[in-house]
Amino acid sequence: MARGSFEDLARRLAERGRFTVAPNPLVGAVAVRGDAVVGEGWHARAGEDHAEVRALKAAGGAAAGATLFVTLEPCNHHGRTPPCVEAIRQAGVSRVVVGALDPDPRMRGRSVEMLRDAGIEVEVVGDPACELQNEQFFHRMRTGRPFVHVKLATTLDGRIAAPGGDSKWVTGEAARLRAHALRAEAGAVLVGAGTVRADDPTLTARGLPEVPPAVTRAVLDPRLTTSPESKLARTASDSPVVVFAASESLDGRERALLKAGCEVVEAPANGGTLDLLYILDELGRRGVKGVLVEGGGETATGFVERGLADKLTLFYAPKLMGSEGVPMIGTLRATKMAEALRFRVSGVEAVGEDVAVTLYPARSEEEKRVHRAC
Amino acid sequence: MARGSFEDLARRLAERGRFTVAPNPLVGAVAVRGDAVVGEGWHARAGEDHAEVRALKAAGGAAAGATLFVTLEPCNHHGRTPPCVEAIRQAGVSRVVVGALDPDPRMRGRSVEMLRDAGIEVEVVGDPACELQNEQFFHRMRTGRPFVHVKLATTLDGRIAAPGGDSKWVTGEAARLRAHALRAEAGAVLVGAGTVRADDPTLTARGLPEVPPAVTRAVLDPRLTTSPESKLARTASDSPVVVFAASESLDGRERALLKAGCEVVEAPANGGTLDLLYILDELGRRGVKGVLVEGGGETATGFVERGLADKLTLFYAPKLMGSEGVPMIGTLRATKMAEALRFRVSGVEAVGEDVAVTLYPARSEEEKRVHRAC
Repeated sequence: MARGSFEDLARRLAERGRFTVAPNPLVGAVAVRGDAVVGEGWHARAGEDHAEVRALKAAGGAAAGATLFVTLEPCNHHGRTPPCVEAIRQAGVSRVVVGALDPDPRMRGRSVEMLRDAGIEVEVVGDPACELQNEQFFHRMRTGRPFVHVKLATTLDGRIAAPGGDSKWVTGEAARLRAHALRAEAGAVLVGAGTVRADDPTLTARGLPEVPPAVTRAVLDPRLTTSPESKLARTASDSPVVVFAASESLDGRERALLKAGCEVVEAPANGGTLDLLYILDELGRRGVKGVLVEGGGETATGFVERGLADKLTLFYAPKLMGSEGVPMIGTLRATKMAEALRFRVSGVEAVGEDVAVTLYPARSEEEKRVHRAC
Repeated sequence: MARGSFEDLARRLAERGRFTVAPNPLVGAVAVRGDAVVGEGWHARAGEDHAEVRALKAAGGAAAGATLFVTLEPCNHHGRTPPCVEAIRQAGVSRVVVGALDPDPRMRGRSVEMLRDAGIEVEVVGDPACELQNEQFFHRMRTGRPFVHVKLATTLDGRIAAPGGDSKWVTGEAARLRAHALRAEAGAVLVGAGTVRADDPTLTARGLPEVPPAVTRAVLDPRLTTSPESKLARTASDSPVVVFAASESLDGRERALLKAGCEVVEAPANGGTLDLLYILDELGRRGVKGVLVEGGGETATGFVERGLADKLTLFYAPKLMGSEGVPMIGTLRATKMAEALRFRVSGVEAVGEDVAVTLYPARSEEEKRVHRAC
């Protein structure tokens, strides 16, 4: 087996945690002796064994003298589990191949140094695929804010609801299940208060092969209209609910929400619109690595027009609603086609009867340089 | 080589004519002796040898006693070329495998009979793939009207132009080239007069590996506003232009267009909107097998809402224009999401930087039955 194959295997193992590991990163590890895999591991869930520890446990005595391929720099701190650096040293591993360094600027490269100090050979690959696999975690570690993934379910002509607001359902079951997976991947969901009033959604991650950790549900609610009788509030004890409101709305109405177990957070507002950067910072402080912005159109527009959408997933249902339907994106002030906000298609696929298109913002060369240097 | 492989080969050969053969059907033929292909042929261009004749010429003396696989029932009439049935008989072919019968109800099965009368064994496969390959030709032969293929280039949020009408360019070069191929495939293009006034397009099929036959350009122009100075009119001697206008607009203005070489056709109008079925019938009478409806949004909406769109190809550019942009589809009078016009995705792919989604109308089971029986 070629060396690149062990790196690929480690990355594939990491994928097994995609929908259960939030807010932690996906990590995979492979212990190898000669050409033989002697242990495989992945990080499945916060609080459980890290990938390295699982691979070493699987290898048992064979770990001594082995090469350990790991997708992300091992941890060196006591969290809910003991430090991986220590486990690697104790297992007698002779060489470690690291896919990507820790994105946390305060920790970056420190574990590599500690391993080398312990006499272990370490190679850092700097594989962009390992970063991409953890784009949400890397973003949060670099910026302190969660990665913003905007998801919209729309007709072919860009309508998310009928003229009266009816939106049940735009897409089919397969696309809706995919949206649940995206919630689990991010670990948090954000909607506008209008969506809560109109649809009374639960916004949890359901129907997946494994039960993911509780998803944090955030609501942009400047006028604090979210009802304590809403499904969100009534499930707040199972899955956190954070309602962001303008200070003038905190006139006592918040008490019923607090009593229901919701968190109510005062946020700066400008003309009835909450400060999105402030809100992202607040979510980042709560350890959220990614947030799936699920609508409505105004909320999505807010993130998109401020350049705060790090990724878009658009589910197109094979339907035409006509121009009286509710647009997926509001006013963006472009006056020419050349002024439209630009993205880059990263993926396109059929999902059940619908089509999913995944996009990233098209950054200028300068932005790309800065982004890489971050 | 298995027998199904010869059928596949014949269908692949037929594909070589896709962008040059209009208004004729795509046809491929393979002459086989035992397990060996002794002749291949396809129909490349109206007026040139039919696929069967090319395959038999390639086979030469080996055609005697051969099996001829052909995607479509051979012709039996003297057109621009002699009848294929006669060529097959004269070559001494002993067996013919026909992918699909002639869609023309007056001709259907007649050639098969003639071949059998000549002592040739004939098998009719009835392969849906052979029909699909010629969906435009089959539609025209069954209904007398061209197959209507609606193509739109839109932003992700369903906008075909900026608020002021600027639409240069929505999609990238690869998608625009693909649109030229779709024009060549259909053999005719149709736009609204607003598009002619706004964009002054040429609407020919350019940039393709082989030069296709001249594309018929049709304009829905109830008020007869198309200028004799437009690119369309100025190229009318190379590629036919058919301008459809309401009778009250034919007040002498048509003379300049006629002088430029355009055809001007009076069409029934209702409240300033031309009768689309009448126009399709007129185009069908001109031998057009397919028409690529290229916009603007109102023209596309007209065909879509009347259930006259047989296929949609939507090119999505990775851009957001915002809700002030020109919508790709106008009013459709749906009041609930469940009332949206439904389609079925048949293909989705990345085309250059853009995404192409191909769709067919979602027919009810009853409609499907009738459609099949047509």
